Amino acid sequence: MRGLAERLRGLLGEGVVHTDPDPVYAGDHAVPSAPGTSFLLVLPRDVEGVQATLRLAHETGTPVVPRGAGSGLSGGATPIDGSIVLSLERLTRIREIDVLDEVAVVEAGVITADLSEALAPHGFFYAPDPASARLSSIGGNIATNAGGLHCAKYGVTRESVFGLEVVLADGTLLRTGHRSIKGVTGLDLTQLLIGSEGTLAIVVAATVRIRPLPVARRTVLARFPTVAGAAAGVNAISRSPVRPAACELLDARSLEDIDENTGAGVAEGESAVLLVELDGYGIAEQTRDLIAALGGAGGPADDGGDGGDAGPSDVEIRVLEDEAEAEHWWELRRSGRGSGAGHFRLGEDVAIPKSRLADAFAVIERIGREHGIRTSAVAHAGDGNLHPSLSLPRPEDNPDPSAPLPPVLHEAADDLVREALALGGTISGEHGIGTAKHSWLDLELSDASRALQRRLKDAFDPQHLLNPGKAL
Amino acid sequence: MRGLAERLRGLLGEGVVHTDPDPVYAGDHAVPSAPGTSFLLVLPRDVEGVQATLRLAHETGTPVVPRGAGSGLSGGATPIDGSIVLSLERLTRIREIDVLDEVAVVEAGVITADLSEALAPHGFFYAPDPASARLSSIGGNIATNAGGLHCAKYGVTRESVFGLEVVLADGTLLRTGHRSIKGVTGLDLTQLLIGSEGTLAIVVAATVRIRPLPVARRTVLARFPTVAGAAAGVNAISRSPVRPAACELLDARSLEDIDENTGAGVAEGESAVLLVELDGYGIAEQTRDLIAALGGAGGPADDGGDGGDAGPSDVEIRVLEDEAEAEHWWELRRSGRGSGAGHFRLGEDVAIPKSRLADAFAVIERIGREHGIRTSAVAHAGDGNLHPSLSLPRPEDNPDPSAPLPPVLHEAADDLVREALALGGTISGEHGIGTAKHSWLDLELSDASRALQRRLKDAFDPQHLLNPGKAL
Repeated sequence: MRGLAERLRGLLGEGVVHTDPDPVYAGDHAVPSAPGTSFLLVLPRDVEGVQATLRLAHETGTPVVPRGAGSGLSGGATPIDGSIVLSLERLTRIREIDVLDEVAVVEAGVITADLSEALAPHGFFYAPDPASARLSSIGGNIATNAGGLHCAKYGVTRESVFGLEVVLADGTLLRTGHRSIKGVTGLDLTQLLIGSEGTLAIVVAATVRIRPLPVARRTVLARFPTVAGAAAGVNAISRSPVRPAACELLDARSLEDIDENTGAGVAEGESAVLLVELDGYGIAEQTRDLIAALGGAGGPADDGGDGGDAGPSDVEIRVLEDEAEAEHWWELRRSGRGSGAGHFRLGEDVAIPKSRLADAFAVIERIGREHGIRTSAVAHAGDGNLHPSLSLPRPEDNPDPSAPLPPVLHEAADDLVREALALGGTISGEHGIGTAKHSWLDLELSDASRALQRRLKDAFDPQHLLNPGKAL
Repeated sequence: MRGLAERLRGLLGEGVVHTDPDPVYAGDHAVPSAPGTSFLLVLPRDVEGVQATLRLAHETGTPVVPRGAGSGLSGGATPIDGSIVLSLERLTRIREIDVLDEVAVVEAGVITADLSEALAPHGFFYAPDPASARLSSIGGNIATNAGGLHCAKYGVTRESVFGLEVVLADGTLLRTGHRSIKGVTGLDLTQLLIGSEGTLAIVVAATVRIRPLPVARRTVLARFPTVAGAAAGVNAISRSPVRPAACELLDARSLEDIDENTGAGVAEGESAVLLVELDGYGIAEQTRDLIAALGGAGGPADDGGDGGDAGPSDVEIRVLEDEAEAEHWWELRRSGRGSGAGHFRLGEDVAIPKSRLADAFAVIERIGREHGIRTSAVAHAGDGNLHPSLSLPRPEDNPDPSAPLPPVLHEAADDLVREALALGGTISGEHGIGTAKHSWLDLELSDASRALQRRLKDAFDPQHLLNPGKAL
């Protein structure tokens, strides 16, 4: 790779090509590369630098692993041996904000939360907000079609992208989509590229939708005696006209995780929490209808109508009028997940039709019992996306944090993924396939689908140089 | 084609294969096939019938033109010589409605408005509502990624589809997507297929998102002295926190069209109308903020902040409290478009970044003057999608309604499409490319994009049998 590095230095100048990169580039937030993996790190300063890198990779048949902020959780940015890791982290320009067109034009390396900060003085925000929003980049979010807490109301990343600038495998710059809100000219390459995890092309910039900040926000916390009761609460919301901006379900074990990690003291026996954010106009009416749906605070009890479930009961509902308390709860939800440092931990991401939440939580508890492991789970309940955490205490004589996970955790994850499919769900709700979920693809996708996807890959990248071994 | 018809009858039974079809199948609502075009009409009764037809077409190398309800406006369903026209009109089953999962599973031939009618008793609706919703089918809407009046708030068809059942060119049935609200497994074939106008595969069923009916609705009518004032009103709404469910702009000439077609008496000199629907919670607060934004009824005048425009003035705003009056206006908007029977008429569909509406209306007026034709235009102003109407009176000695349009209308349309692109827009906002807009594709799409789209077409349909000559 030395010759390649020299040629890249010649093209891109000093400070861009690294033959001995910082170990942080050896994996993403969940999946490290195999020990001894050798790769070149390239940090282009602009779109032309990305193109030059890809032209040379194309000429030399070198695999390219694109990388956003490296905050992924499925190995999508994990280096492979002999590859160029092409990080977009220096492409951080917000090129344009236009509130009248309701768009912003941003480069791939812009940190997701930074865009909303830049928009706030205009009274606008960028809706996609993965829990990693302060770390992850918009390019990485687009590559994985990232979700987040507020997609319950505002949709996933896909629903906030109008157009892309991508670099193709041979270095060609391609613009897709439109700046107008609508547009149906030709095949929708924008939508095909979103979520393709860098296997079809490399996103260098995007025209994204921005939205006016809601006129009001309110957090409602509902505590149910059991997780099944909380799941029934989600069904009750589904039947009602209220659609929360965010609706998070935390089971008893995940509340214990939070206490263990933060000392917050939020766990109470077997109770589970629904943490709901309402936003927009008529916040008082929304709150009233939410409380009525949840069957508390004197509202009518849920009659179980369509679903046949018993409906929530004994729910304690609190409107968190104190903004600091509300923000504290949201921060606990975002950062407190999973068992702490003394554990081997595998974080999962599956989605199911949202009426099946109670079944999914029962499955998770059963898997914990049967495999003799600890399980906890939070869910983006508004869209049926669960993040179970599977863990085992580290033995005191083996505290090495880089030790591989015990096989039983992988076995439990396999069980979980299969059960999610059996419930009518999917093997990944929002984290992507990367390398971590690759072996399960055939469980969800038919032979015809896989064959077709391989042909689409060939149409974009006939040499299979872009992120080989990932996603597809 | 006689031998093919016999073989299809053998496979599909009686009453399915028609060698002498009703003339209604010879085109869509805007584009007739060339005189003398010969085709077979096949009306399968079920998905298996669609598969059998495609298997035989694949074996015999016969082109297939898929057809929804035939209400398209760009020639996407127009027969070509020697083809099978495969109509999905008998696949009308609503297989499932599940309000807890917020999905319905429907066959392609379900009429769009029928789904919302079926959902109403559950308190739900299906958001995509092209003006043709009482005629067009969900399959056709998916094939064109149809828009409509309410996409200003709820998005286009794309944003309401979770998964598809499609039949591939060789007759294989493929299921794409997910029933869960989120899902990121593999390339998003669902999104690639939406809007592909039957060139990649034939949609036979879809899992679509359904939404709770809004708790309230209100129509606000704002009349501005000029169309430029109405466009400034749209900008004022963009700056505000209000997001209407629908926001339609009708220029003075389109109001005259409505009067001519219906006798309604809505035109008043050069004034233009913004017809706005608000829905959801806090309808009174929304109305107050809308009126304030529009600068009327004692609200603060628009200060022109970001856009530099002067802002609306002398606007007359009426909240249409009478539901019948409101519905009358919406019906006029949906049905009254374009000059009437005594005219040659070409209806257009372009979209622009929505801050450029005033420029777009000025362009349309200039085109009318320069080409000596009558122009009028309505716009889905909330998303910058314009439907200009270009027309000329028919001479009294040539009242033949099937006579070809005078070339000057096509020349004016060409001018219009190029100007839309110059404003940063697109050649089609929501009607699709079909055959009508095919010649303009290269103005919007780069060589790299067109080449890539051809390779994707090859990946789906190597024999190029599916809707050849359309869309791509």
